[in-house]
Amino acid sequence: MPRYKITFAYEGTDFAGFQRQPHQRTVEGVLTKLINIMAKNPEPAIVVYGSGRTDAGVHALAQTAHFDFPFQLAATSLLKGLNSMCPLDIEIIAVAKVAADFQARYDVTGKRYLYRIAQGEFTNPFKRRYTAHWRFPLDVQKMQQAATDLLGRHDFSSFVAAGAKPGSRVRTIFSATVREDCAHDEVHLSFYGDGFMYNQVRIMAAVLVEIGMGKRPVHDIERLLQVRNRQEARLTLPAQGLYLERVYYPGDDPQHSQKKHRDLD
Amino acid sequence: MPRYKITFAYEGTDFAGFQRQPHQRTVEGVLTKLINIMAKNPEPAIVVYGSGRTDAGVHALAQTAHFDFPFQLAATSLLKGLNSMCPLDIEIIAVAKVAADFQARYDVTGKRYLYRIAQGEFTNPFKRRYTAHWRFPLDVQKMQQAATDLLGRHDFSSFVAAGAKPGSRVRTIFSATVREDCAHDEVHLSFYGDGFMYNQVRIMAAVLVEIGMGKRPVHDIERLLQVRNRQEARLTLPAQGLYLERVYYPGDDPQHSQKKHRDLD
Repeated sequence: MPRYKITFAYEGTDFAGFQRQPHQRTVEGVLTKLINIMAKNPEPAIVVYGSGRTDAGVHALAQTAHFDFPFQLAATSLLKGLNSMCPLDIEIIAVAKVAADFQARYDVTGKRYLYRIAQGEFTNPFKRRYTAHWRFPLDVQKMQQAATDLLGRHDFSSFVAAGAKPGSRVRTIFSATVREDCAHDEVHLSFYGDGFMYNQVRIMAAVLVEIGMGKRPVHDIERLLQVRNRQEARLTLPAQGLYLERVYYPGDDPQHSQKKHRDLD
Repeated sequence: MPRYKITFAYEGTDFAGFQRQPHQRTVEGVLTKLINIMAKNPEPAIVVYGSGRTDAGVHALAQTAHFDFPFQLAATSLLKGLNSMCPLDIEIIAVAKVAADFQARYDVTGKRYLYRIAQGEFTNPFKRRYTAHWRFPLDVQKMQQAATDLLGRHDFSSFVAAGAKPGSRVRTIFSATVREDCAHDEVHLSFYGDGFMYNQVRIMAAVLVEIGMGKRPVHDIERLLQVRNRQEARLTLPAQGLYLERVYYPGDDPQHSQKKHRDLD
């Protein structure tokens, strides 16, 4: 059976996260249903394997998955067919036929996440689903300085939520940037690494925000990496500011990120 | 009693339009409730007078209204107090004390509307509430050429929906522009005039789109203005692409529009 890789965007607000769950509207659940309909509901049913989960309310600019289809179909036919059935909060961006041993999850070489913080005294009604709102001024230079402490291979135990799966907390962060988007009165945090654990990006973002407010010393991240204690990192920023921006596989250009779906830049 | 003018933005998706209606969530209804709470629910209740209606699903970047408050309160206190109670899809942008005879509706000298059309083959999940999606290519130069036929004082009977209030269909359009926002793969239509009737902007936008697709001759608007027949204009573009961008009063600078809330430019 031919194997396909799909790349897709979703607006996470109305999903109970990515992963299939009984009686819940999830991205994986919707896609599994549509792909099985396109294959005329074969037995056994087609299983969709995502690159990894995202939480309820988290968005994706370019999530990936693979599945085996029971018959040959041109990638463009799958692309158009699936999009014609997709609800308005999912868009299939690309479909490609891949090698029979391609694994959307295990072949990942890196992931890039974006976190959008809206500044301003009051909540902008057009951003409420797409940003976290933080009314207090942030010292972006301090935050950028602090973000460099995340770079490299570390034990991120201080930055993992309690519900995370057991296992090693060691991950590598290749890049971490904080920049001001003055035109939109936003601060954007971008993290690129070999993998991120449950709530890790939102906890790292929260620590950087506290540093930007002067509530933590600039190099507090060094200490947090040492102590390996989740209690020390305290806050988690909300889901609606978080975007899975790109999932990288061998041969992908790490400089290239998926910005098509951002109303920015 | 002091009279106040408020300027506010709203994301129209979850409102049954602007105007107060029994058993419906409307912008006027929500604001009236909050303003009365701030005034400690006086008898008789405070009435809020908007500059005019917007339909269900239509957004506002800067709608206006006035009301008489039973006691003196600094404008900034009203601004902060109201925003602290506002739901996330309304933001109060400004509060100003005005002359006792100021009328949010009757003093209007002009209104500016924006219509956002998203291009691209498939619907972008992050734009579904904020744009109309039109996958077919549009000839923006033709549309701009056609838009100039709208300029000036005309009888717009061909461009009024059936449900409009009776009365003169003569209005003046001061400016009408069509421009490509290449960075976001959108086409933006902007209309500035002395007033617009029920569905007028959405019908004008639909005619311009048909001209941009080559389905109507470039100067078909001249003919439509002559025939004064709604049936000839046919389509109405959907509500989610429409924004009330600014309401102008004597002394306002017509060059200045409200763009703070657009994730664009």
